[in-house]
Amino acid sequence: MGVALPRKEFFEIPEGVIYLDGNSLGVLPRGAAERAGQVITQEWGNQLIRAWNDAGWMALPQIVGDSIAALLGAPKGSIATGDTLSIKVYQALAAALKMRPERKVILSDNGNFPSDLYMAQGLIGTLAQGYELRTPAPEDVLEAITDDVAAVMLTQVDYRTGRMHDMDSITRRAHAVGAVMIWDLAHSAGAVEVDLAACNAEFAVGCSYKYLNGGPGAPAFIYVRPDIVDGIEPALSGWLGHEAPFAMDLDYRPAMATERMRVGTPPILQLAVLQEALKVWDGVDMCELRAASVALSDLFIQEVEARCPQLRLASPRNASERGSQVSFAFEHGYAAMQTIIDRGVIGDFRAPNVMRFGFTPLYLDHDDVMAAAQIIQEVLTEELWRDPKYQVRAAVT
Amino acid sequence: MGVALPRKEFFEIPEGVIYLDGNSLGVLPRGAAERAGQVITQEWGNQLIRAWNDAGWMALPQIVGDSIAALLGAPKGSIATGDTLSIKVYQALAAALKMRPERKVILSDNGNFPSDLYMAQGLIGTLAQGYELRTPAPEDVLEAITDDVAAVMLTQVDYRTGRMHDMDSITRRAHAVGAVMIWDLAHSAGAVEVDLAACNAEFAVGCSYKYLNGGPGAPAFIYVRPDIVDGIEPALSGWLGHEAPFAMDLDYRPAMATERMRVGTPPILQLAVLQEALKVWDGVDMCELRAASVALSDLFIQEVEARCPQLRLASPRNASERGSQVSFAFEHGYAAMQTIIDRGVIGDFRAPNVMRFGFTPLYLDHDDVMAAAQIIQEVLTEELWRDPKYQVRAAVT
Repeated sequence: MGVALPRKEFFEIPEGVIYLDGNSLGVLPRGAAERAGQVITQEWGNQLIRAWNDAGWMALPQIVGDSIAALLGAPKGSIATGDTLSIKVYQALAAALKMRPERKVILSDNGNFPSDLYMAQGLIGTLAQGYELRTPAPEDVLEAITDDVAAVMLTQVDYRTGRMHDMDSITRRAHAVGAVMIWDLAHSAGAVEVDLAACNAEFAVGCSYKYLNGGPGAPAFIYVRPDIVDGIEPALSGWLGHEAPFAMDLDYRPAMATERMRVGTPPILQLAVLQEALKVWDGVDMCELRAASVALSDLFIQEVEARCPQLRLASPRNASERGSQVSFAFEHGYAAMQTIIDRGVIGDFRAPNVMRFGFTPLYLDHDDVMAAAQIIQEVLTEELWRDPKYQVRAAVT
Repeated sequence: MGVALPRKEFFEIPEGVIYLDGNSLGVLPRGAAERAGQVITQEWGNQLIRAWNDAGWMALPQIVGDSIAALLGAPKGSIATGDTLSIKVYQALAAALKMRPERKVILSDNGNFPSDLYMAQGLIGTLAQGYELRTPAPEDVLEAITDDVAAVMLTQVDYRTGRMHDMDSITRRAHAVGAVMIWDLAHSAGAVEVDLAACNAEFAVGCSYKYLNGGPGAPAFIYVRPDIVDGIEPALSGWLGHEAPFAMDLDYRPAMATERMRVGTPPILQLAVLQEALKVWDGVDMCELRAASVALSDLFIQEVEARCPQLRLASPRNASERGSQVSFAFEHGYAAMQTIIDRGVIGDFRAPNVMRFGFTPLYLDHDDVMAAAQIIQEVLTEELWRDPKYQVRAAVT
C-alpha cells in the first residue's frame, strides 16, 4: 500500500484553478521556491565555486537520475539527467545506429512528438550515409518492424491523443528482428506504470517538467540498459561524460556506465528544483497511481460525453490503451479551450483540432473532474467560445 | 564614458572573501534570488502553462541572446542561448563541416578546453567519414591553418594560462585558405573586448556562468554570422529551432536566422537568473572594463612576483596576449591553493600544477589585489600549505 492520493498538500495550486495540463507543465511543488532560494543564496552566493564539491552539485545529476529510475523500474546508476529531451533523443539514436552499422533504417511513427522526428532527421542529414526515417501510422508500427530496421524509436504515450503503445510487445518484436529499441517516456514518467528492466529496451529518454513537476525547462533524462552501456560510444562526448573530467586529458575516454551520457556543465538550479519536486513521490505506489489515473480519466470521458455531444473522443476509450490524458476533437477547439481556461479549467490545445486534458492523481480528485466537466458543459452548451476575444490564436506549449 | 568600476553594490560577495575565480563561476548578482523566486512562485506557480506566453518564457532565449550580443559586438538576433557550451560547440562544428564537405580536417590546438576537443572527437566518430582532428601547440596554430582544413576551432583565451589568441589574424588566415572559423569565447565574454562583426568569424560559442555571472549551469550561447545563417542545416534540429514549432509538422524546417540553433525546451529558471545577471552590464564600457582588467592583472603579477619567488608566471607577461586571468605554476600548487582559499582568497587549480586567478573588474579593485597578494605571500613564505589537511585532493571545476 502506498500513501493516500491525491497529495494536494504537497503542491501550490492557485485558488480557483482545476489544472488539467500536468501533461504539459506540472504544478509547483511546495518547497521548490525555498530550495531554489537556498541554492542561490547559500550555495552559489556563499560557497561559490566550492559548492561544486561542498554542496554536492557535481553529483546532483546522478542522484536525481536515481530518483527517476525508481519510478521507472530501472536500477540505480542506469539513468543520467541533463540537457533537453531532444538532445537525449539524439544521444540514444546516434548510439543505437552505431550498434547496427549495417542497417540504415530508423523506424518511428507519425504520431511521435515532432521534435523526436526532427532530431532523427538532423542526425540523418549529419551522417550523410543514406539513412532513412520511416513513419508509419502508430497502429501499423508492429508490422513495420522489419529486419532492415536499425533502431525503433517511439514515444509510448501519444502527446496528442494519449494513445499508448505496448512497450513489451514492440520491444520484443524489435529484438526479434535485431533492431535496437528506444522509448521516449515524456508522457509516461510519473503517469503510467513503466518497468524498464522487464521491458528490456536498450534506451529510454524523457523529460521531467510534465508529470514529474520539475518546472519549466527542467532537465531531461536518458536510460541505457546496464549490460550494453559500457560498449556505448557517445556522439555527444562532453567533458562531464569523461572518465576523469578534471584530468583535462586531450582525448575522450567515456566514463563508467551511464555517466558517459552526461555532456556539459549541469544546470544546477533546475536540477535542485527537480530534486525537490521528486520528493513528492516518496511512498507513492505506481500501480495505485495508475489506477487513480484511470478512474479520473474514465470519469472525465463519461461526464464530458454525457454533457457535450459536440465533442468527439480522440483518445482510446479503452483505458489500457491510453496514457494519463484524454483528448477531444472539436472544430472550434482552440477558442473553446481558451474559454474554458478563462473559467479556471486549464487544459491545452494541439493543432489542428485537439483539446487535451491531463490527469495527475497527485493533485486531482473526483470533485475536480466533476467541476471541470460542469464548466466544459457550460462553455459548449452556451457556445461561450464564440466571444471574439477567444478567437485570437497564440502559441502555447 | 561608461559607468564607474567596480560595481560591487550589484553583487552579494561574502564577507571576508576576495574572489579571484570569476573565470570559473561568477559571483551572485543582487536580485538573482528574488527573480528566481518570482519566476517560481508567480509565473510557474500562478500562471502555470500560460506563462510560456504571458510571462514571456518562449522569447527569453532570444532576449538574453541579444543582451549577450551587445557585449560581443554582434548584431541583435545573431545569438541563440540554451543548452551547454559543449552542445553549442557540436552545433557549430557540425554546421561548419557541412559547409566544406570536400575537406576532412578540424584544426584546434592542444591548449583548447578539453571538452571542445572531446566534442570534436565525438562528432568525428559519429560521422565515420575519415575526419581528422589536429591539435598543434597554440603558438603553431597560425601556420597549421592549411588549405585542407575545413574548420578552425579555437578558444580565444586559454583556460589554463590565460594566453589569448589574436582573433582577427587567425580568422583572416582561416578565410584565406577557405576554412570556416569557430571561436569559443568561454573566457572572453564579459572579460575582454570582442568585436564579432569586425572579426568576421562564421561561428562563436560561449558560456554564461563565468564573467557573465549567470550562475551554476547557466545556459550557453551560439553566434552565427548573419549572412550565412540562412544556409545552415542544424545537426541538432529540435522543435524550438523549427520555423513553426506549434504547427507540429512531421518534417523539420529551420526557423529564421539564429533561432534555428535553438533545440529543446529552454531552461527558464536558469535563463531568468541569467537575464537578471546581465543587467549589471548596463552602461559598462567594454574598453574601460578591459583597461581595468589589465590594470588589476598587471598589479597582481607585479605584487606576487615581488613577494613569491617560488611561483613561476604561467601566463603571458604582455597584457595584450593575455585574457582576464593570471596563472602561476607551482609544484605544490594544489595544496597551496587550498591553503589560500582557506584564508579567504578564492582562486582555483588546474592539473598538473597551475594556480589560476581570475580578474573581474565588476567586483574587484586595487585593494582586493593588494590584500590577495599579501595572503598569498604569507602562505608561500611560511609554507603553510605543508599542513596535511591541504594535501587531500578533490575535484573542482
